[in-house]
Amino acid sequence: MTSCKQTSKIKSALPSSNIELAILGMVIFIILGLNQLAMANTSPNLFITTTDIENMRSAIKEQGTFKQAFVINKALVDQQILEAIVVPMPEDGGGGYTHERHKKNYKLMVNAAIIYQLTQDERYADYVRDMLVEYAALYPTLPLHPKRKMGKQNPGKLFWQSLNEAVWLVYTSQAYDLILSSLSKAEKEKIELGLFRPIVKFLSVDSPETFNKVHNHGTWTTAAVGMTGYVLGEPEWVEQALYGLDKSGEGGFLRQLDELFSPQGYYNEGPYYQRYALMPFVTFAKVIQNNQPERNIFEYRNGIVLKAIDTTIQLSYNKLFFPINDAIKDKGIDTIELVNGVAIAYGLTGEAGLLDIAKQQDQILLTGDGLKVAQALDKKLEQPYHFDSVAFGDGNDGKQGALVIMRQNVDGEQALLFKPAAQGLGHGHFDKLTWQFYDKGEEIVSDYGAARFLNVEAKYGGRYLPENKTWAKQTIAHNTVVVDEKSHFNGKVKIGNKKHPELLFFEKNDHITISSARIDSAYKGVSLTRTMAFIDLPELDPSLVIDVFDIKSDSKHQYDLPVHYKGHLISTNFELGTQLTNLSVLGKDNGYQHLWLKAQAHPKTNLSQITWLNKNGRFYTQSSIVDDDSSIIFTQIGSNDPLFNLRNENAFIYRNPQSKNHTFVSVLEPHGEYNPSKEYTINAVSKVQKLIHKKENNIDVVEITFIDDRQYLLAFISSENNQANQENKFSFNGSKYQFNGRFMFLEINK
Amino acid sequence: MTSCKQTSKIKSALPSSNIELAILGMVIFIILGLNQLAMANTSPNLFITTTDIENMRSAIKEQGTFKQAFVINKALVDQQILEAIVVPMPEDGGGGYTHERHKKNYKLMVNAAIIYQLTQDERYADYVRDMLVEYAALYPTLPLHPKRKMGKQNPGKLFWQSLNEAVWLVYTSQAYDLILSSLSKAEKEKIELGLFRPIVKFLSVDSPETFNKVHNHGTWTTAAVGMTGYVLGEPEWVEQALYGLDKSGEGGFLRQLDELFSPQGYYNEGPYYQRYALMPFVTFAKVIQNNQPERNIFEYRNGIVLKAIDTTIQLSYNKLFFPINDAIKDKGIDTIELVNGVAIAYGLTGEAGLLDIAKQQDQILLTGDGLKVAQALDKKLEQPYHFDSVAFGDGNDGKQGALVIMRQNVDGEQALLFKPAAQGLGHGHFDKLTWQFYDKGEEIVSDYGAARFLNVEAKYGGRYLPENKTWAKQTIAHNTVVVDEKSHFNGKVKIGNKKHPELLFFEKNDHITISSARIDSAYKGVSLTRTMAFIDLPELDPSLVIDVFDIKSDSKHQYDLPVHYKGHLISTNFELGTQLTNLSVLGKDNGYQHLWLKAQAHPKTNLSQITWLNKNGRFYTQSSIVDDDSSIIFTQIGSNDPLFNLRNENAFIYRNPQSKNHTFVSVLEPHGEYNPSKEYTINAVSKVQKLIHKKENNIDVVEITFIDDRQYLLAFISSENNQANQENKFSFNGSKYQFNGRFMFLEINK
Repeated sequence: MTSCKQTSKIKSALPSSNIELAILGMVIFIILGLNQLAMANTSPNLFITTTDIENMRSAIKEQGTFKQAFVINKALVDQQILEAIVVPMPEDGGGGYTHERHKKNYKLMVNAAIIYQLTQDERYADYVRDMLVEYAALYPTLPLHPKRKMGKQNPGKLFWQSLNEAVWLVYTSQAYDLILSSLSKAEKEKIELGLFRPIVKFLSVDSPETFNKVHNHGTWTTAAVGMTGYVLGEPEWVEQALYGLDKSGEGGFLRQLDELFSPQGYYNEGPYYQRYALMPFVTFAKVIQNNQPERNIFEYRNGIVLKAIDTTIQLSYNKLFFPINDAIKDKGIDTIELVNGVAIAYGLTGEAGLLDIAKQQDQILLTGDGLKVAQALDKKLEQPYHFDSVAFGDGNDGKQGALVIMRQNVDGEQALLFKPAAQGLGHGHFDKLTWQFYDKGEEIVSDYGAARFLNVEAKYGGRYLPENKTWAKQTIAHNTVVVDEKSHFNGKVKIGNKKHPELLFFEKNDHITISSARIDSAYKGVSLTRTMAFIDLPELDPSLVIDVFDIKSDSKHQYDLPVHYKGHLISTNFELGTQLTNLSVLGKDNGYQHLWLKAQAHPKTNLSQITWLNKNGRFYTQSSIVDDDSSIIFTQIGSNDPLFNLRNENAFIYRNPQSKNHTFVSVLEPHGEYNPSKEYTINAVSKVQKLIHKKENNIDVVEITFIDDRQYLLAFISSENNQANQENKFSFNGSKYQFNGRFMFLEINK
Repeated sequence: MTSCKQTSKIKSALPSSNIELAILGMVIFIILGLNQLAMANTSPNLFITTTDIENMRSAIKEQGTFKQAFVINKALVDQQILEAIVVPMPEDGGGGYTHERHKKNYKLMVNAAIIYQLTQDERYADYVRDMLVEYAALYPTLPLHPKRKMGKQNPGKLFWQSLNEAVWLVYTSQAYDLILSSLSKAEKEKIELGLFRPIVKFLSVDSPETFNKVHNHGTWTTAAVGMTGYVLGEPEWVEQALYGLDKSGEGGFLRQLDELFSPQGYYNEGPYYQRYALMPFVTFAKVIQNNQPERNIFEYRNGIVLKAIDTTIQLSYNKLFFPINDAIKDKGIDTIELVNGVAIAYGLTGEAGLLDIAKQQDQILLTGDGLKVAQALDKKLEQPYHFDSVAFGDGNDGKQGALVIMRQNVDGEQALLFKPAAQGLGHGHFDKLTWQFYDKGEEIVSDYGAARFLNVEAKYGGRYLPENKTWAKQTIAHNTVVVDEKSHFNGKVKIGNKKHPELLFFEKNDHITISSARIDSAYKGVSLTRTMAFIDLPELDPSLVIDVFDIKSDSKHQYDLPVHYKGHLISTNFELGTQLTNLSVLGKDNGYQHLWLKAQAHPKTNLSQITWLNKNGRFYTQSSIVDDDSSIIFTQIGSNDPLFNLRNENAFIYRNPQSKNHTFVSVLEPHGEYNPSKEYTINAVSKVQKLIHKKENNIDVVEITFIDDRQYLLAFISSENNQANQENKFSFNGSKYQFNGRFMFLEINK
């Protein structure tokens, strides 16, 4: 147990790296000799300020969205505080009873504490106090959690991992701040000595590795400790939270802001974890802003916190996050982390586009920023949020590859994700240069996401399933090239983390977005270059995706390029060669062991066409250049899956059995409509008739001919050192062409 | 070509079977010697009356839903009539260009004619006139359609089947009625002589078989001819339409009303075809009502037309029709046939519940009834439509089995369909006593429906796929017992049509709906009796389905009972015995050739439990009594499917390999919630612990024990001749019980 120092809750006077401190000429309070306990008369001022509370108290006297949210929340709290307080001895792991109960408790404490502030009814504060007292009695007696997994996660005491303990404290410190004014000195002493000081000690000085770690677990921990420091008036804890235990700046919250996001605010584990990581960043930043505005935390690193919030929104389609890496597909923009983020960002910036997102989130927070959002929505101030086509540079310098998002500009109904991004740590997949395609609200070319049934005990305890590693992370589970049936980096995360693709270019104009990237390190001696162009010409209704995947090697290999399609196969322009009465497994390992071989086709023409129908009622045809050696394999996930853990999804795989160099060229074409309700079907057949690819002087040329004889030419350069204003020349079919920069697209037979 | 008789458009004075004719003292007009052409000065009075038009003209002067619909429709018509009129020489079959063009034309004519009446702008009338004149020039030159399929469907001239021709005329006669007042005598003569008289002749006297057929094709034809008779002032055609070509009453519209619906208004092909059949019934009935109200057509057979409309609504769940027999699952209550039906029914009855349906349909018709609906919706007069638990007796007498719908009463979120219905003619499936279960908007225990991609040329020309017969119609494709891997009636429709199950009872109280039925003719020497109880006690959250399937035979057979479940398998309380690296086919024919054998389990305890997770986020566990011989087979659809025509859906099959008598007893239990977005999972595990079944003195007793030791007893009698007030006694576990009527359900260890 820590001893109590003679300090009060103060504005920090300790050294800060923020130059603005001096500029702003801040007033420094150093008041020694006062009560060492948190000062009730400054409460609340952690996440919600006294001014916020005054505004909220006024708002609930009038009709409106905010009052509705208050009424609902109060009713929920009223119901819950009727029940006896339960603070159980920690026993269960994630999803188990005691785990869930302690999670429920922190949420309940915050909610009840807010209702206390809004109603000024002591019953709510007393309830929180009583629960905190129980925790204060329990906590000092706790050993490490019985379900801890040493070596895997850092253990907690209330929870099996210290991560949950830090989350618990981020919330509970807020609840405490909100009821401080209702507590006697003795009560405060009991709670702080029994609970807050020991838990802070446990999370900081007793766990230096986690605390100093530049990782989202570290962010939760530093936020928890820093926030508690503000409430208990321990500026030392705040300093440690910001600069690491030794205050050197090598660890701590600011270092995390420097390292964990790219300059554009992209978090390199991907949006699923970005969303999760966001919570402690925005919460602690807001707390710092409330307590030490002179730190200008929201301006830190050119406004990285706000950029991270905005990027999280950009990384969604139809309200759901793009499922890259270990992502559960149900997560979307209505997640509480982003509700909080959007409210805070709106509170700071007043951007009307954020209200569009807030409206879709349909959750009003009982906070100062939540009030601002609610009042703005009541006034219908929202404007359409603008989803953009962006290449999000990866890594802390933004130069370790990129995550590329292309949007159709007319109505944004289509999105293409192209992923020359870095590995993304332990949750990363071996999916360099993969892509995904979305249309009319649905997945069209899809990614499996994570193999996990979150918190479903019967499915491997609710944790990541074994098949997450054996299938979901493997290269064949993605829409990118697999060489010799092995995964990128031979499936080694450590190697993957050290390497990354290079973004060669990303360009866009009114109708075309195009990007090219390369990686030479995924396979030894094999260079992979992919160029994806999203063409959205008005006359090409609805649009086209052109994909040129160029492989170079000095030795012969088998190259597989899978397309994980979503929908029902409608037709192919070749014999399928379907297995009718017996299915066997496609391969032995690296994910191949999970694929049933349903059909293997050997197209006789050099243009293969595969059409499927998505549940959105639209048809999709992929037309592809195939050479004589190639075959197309149709697969279904499901073999070597003894417990039916995997979803039985379908794919086709273009296979080139042995080549040194090979280029996969294809065009994806959404078309037509199937409407069995209104009983019509239109344009169920592809309009692409011919596809030619050639390469001349580093210039790739793709010619597309439609059944009405219209012809289009795409030319691009994917070499590293092309200059924007360089004049590129090539001849094709007897005609000569030239263009500046990276690409050219034109109709040639007009 | 017919000769023109000297009759005018008159109210019929010909004999009618309706006794009301005399009672009402109707005024009879017999006006001979007038112009033989349709009288312009009574136009319109077919489907839309002059009074309707006056009201509609007023309505479009004011803001409201109706005006919105008018503006949108007018804009659509304005756009279409800019294009040249195209009346192509018939060439293509269903889905082809000329087929679709002629369909588009009749809709366009009706819409333009309505806009003409509402705007009184002659341009619209002229457009319709010009198109009719083109048809009048073309029609007399037409041979039978080149794509006709003799022996399969009756051929048309404009269309490959005469059915489409009749549909065309039902619409076009309305368009003609609406523009009559704008036409000169010469124009009328040209159109009637060239088009209407020859097409009526072709559909009636030249096609007596279809015309007189008591079948929905006959209904379209009689409606078309009768409607044209009203417009052209040919009462003879009306009489033939109502009573058959020979006016004997053996054919015709009234006979169709007598025969094609059960007394409750159930159409024995099931809701998918009921919806389709509804259109000519309600349209022609409305026309008769407008022209000869003295026929009281809506009171005919105790209001059978209105009952048919209401029953069609009742046969839906979450806006979609229950997919029994050859049904495409996307069809629902927003289908134009039911929009029309609901508007007419509301116009007649003013029932506020119908407005609830109209609101969900979200389509306002530019008709007199459409106006009434629009005005009522503007006034927010809608009341919740009441979905009820009903046994719809099948067959014209309502005694040929039944289609049983059970609903959860609290909020209607659950529905159970139990199908001891008759075969349902050529579109019927061999699915006697099957069931389906729905919850939270989704299919839980499902029916494949039809194997068809409507109008998708690449999928077998858009017709029913070959797999509709080889899979979808077969017994194993349904949730009912298959004996010796053969389908009911050995898959013979003709035999099926002659036999039907017997509904033993259907009873309901506040918390329980229970029904029992038997069929002895599906398999020779095998009696099948199934009893399904839907238990919705407040303390049994959310509910239970108890299923007792009793099979009796003097010889030994293999009995298979499939459950086609929708969702992801979560857990089983037995080893699955999964095939890991090789899949083989379950059987040789009768649908078994389409099933991959994924796993075969031999549960070691006598209670098997299988849990799956539906996309609605709820878990479902089926607990079942299994004996030592039994196995449980897990299958996936997809073998012997060379063109990937079938959806790869999952099932498990309880198999009893050889028994004379056997009873399958199971309980389906919805439970818990999986919420990966909010990151919680609750009650993922079944609460059923034990299941006992015994039979004593014709009384079946099922005891269910839950993990908290609560015990419930269901007792019922499925013998044919039980009396409602009979006192039934049995003993169970040493206690004695007695009950009156068919069943008893109680908690026994209170």
